[in-house]
Amino acid sequence: MIQLYNYFRSSASYRVRIALELKGLSFDYIPVHLTRDGGEQFKPEYRKINPDALTPTFISDEGERLTQSLAIIEYLEEIKPEPALLPGTAIERAYIRSIALQISCEIHPLNNLRVLNYLTGTLSLDAQHKSTWYAHWVESGFASIEQKLNDDKRTGIFCFGDTPTVADICLVPQVFNAERMKVPLDHYPTIMRITTAARQLEAFARAEPSLQPDAF
Amino acid sequence: MIQLYNYFRSSASYRVRIALELKGLSFDYIPVHLTRDGGEQFKPEYRKINPDALTPTFISDEGERLTQSLAIIEYLEEIKPEPALLPGTAIERAYIRSIALQISCEIHPLNNLRVLNYLTGTLSLDAQHKSTWYAHWVESGFASIEQKLNDDKRTGIFCFGDTPTVADICLVPQVFNAERMKVPLDHYPTIMRITTAARQLEAFARAEPSLQPDAF
Repeated sequence: MIQLYNYFRSSASYRVRIALELKGLSFDYIPVHLTRDGGEQFKPEYRKINPDALTPTFISDEGERLTQSLAIIEYLEEIKPEPALLPGTAIERAYIRSIALQISCEIHPLNNLRVLNYLTGTLSLDAQHKSTWYAHWVESGFASIEQKLNDDKRTGIFCFGDTPTVADICLVPQVFNAERMKVPLDHYPTIMRITTAARQLEAFARAEPSLQPDAF
Repeated sequence: MIQLYNYFRSSASYRVRIALELKGLSFDYIPVHLTRDGGEQFKPEYRKINPDALTPTFISDEGERLTQSLAIIEYLEEIKPEPALLPGTAIERAYIRSIALQISCEIHPLNNLRVLNYLTGTLSLDAQHKSTWYAHWVESGFASIEQKLNDDKRTGIFCFGDTPTVADICLVPQVFNAERMKVPLDHYPTIMRITTAARQLEAFARAEPSLQPDAF
């Protein structure tokens, strides 16, 4: 049985949950609470499983350990190609990956918990500066993705065509995260239309943070 | 002819140059100077090519445009599988990708030019705070990667075995960047041994920032 050490609200965990659900792979959900008791990810038991103290950690059926959500999703795509999360030609797959990476490399890393903690802790920034920082990276990234989706004829019900891909798998958790941080999203109608469509799929719905066993 | 809009010192540009050199694919180098005249990436001519105002932008032989260095490298791997930059089994490829992504998602996004500009501009941080921020993300990321490489029996001359992979393609530019920012790297002997080995390969040497046409 696949095991997933994860946290209900972590975007990277959420991405992997969606991919597992889309692939129809069942998994054992092992919660790692990132804020309780100073963070369970820092405890020696979890450090043994993942020295990076990040979520998610994926354990394959064969007991092989993997980290980094996009590496895990590429692995799932290789061992269970259908339904394809990276469909199309080489150039189309690269385009899909580029949207996933734009979210994963240009938005999310700047806004995850450890970075926000550095801003308010080490740099002593107040809540207002933290919110402005957070919104800045969401807005610059989403403005660019919105334009790309509007300009590209490959955009369909989802970011690429009419079936969900790894681009949507990254987009929906980023929207969830931005909503939670109260970033206004009405300037991104295409992003929001796609997110609404994705949320109606059972796989996305089942992966929703609020439905996870560790959600409070 | 492949075209690469890039900047000699940009880590993401440098990764794609190494991959192109390893694959033996020739390309037309089109410089985009990220700091001169307020940044050539912001000029309307470049925005037409890449609205994100980031480098690199890759134009395929067929005129297809791609962004995001790892998406471009995955594309190169698909159209020219040899020499393999993602060798091995599905789980091994996922492991290689996880190192590449750890650098690309956990270190580099926090330390690129636009983020450092936000710290010193919008947040008015001084040079000392900027350096501490920079070093913090390199050190936490490199400590984890160093431990991983030391613990993993798949580590060879390079991050995975004895031929360079996408992990090394991400590692070497990150080391270059950290050296330029004067982060002490003697705590990471395995990272430095691998970097030294990689730099001796012609493909890595040819992609070095100092040898590019826009280097000053």
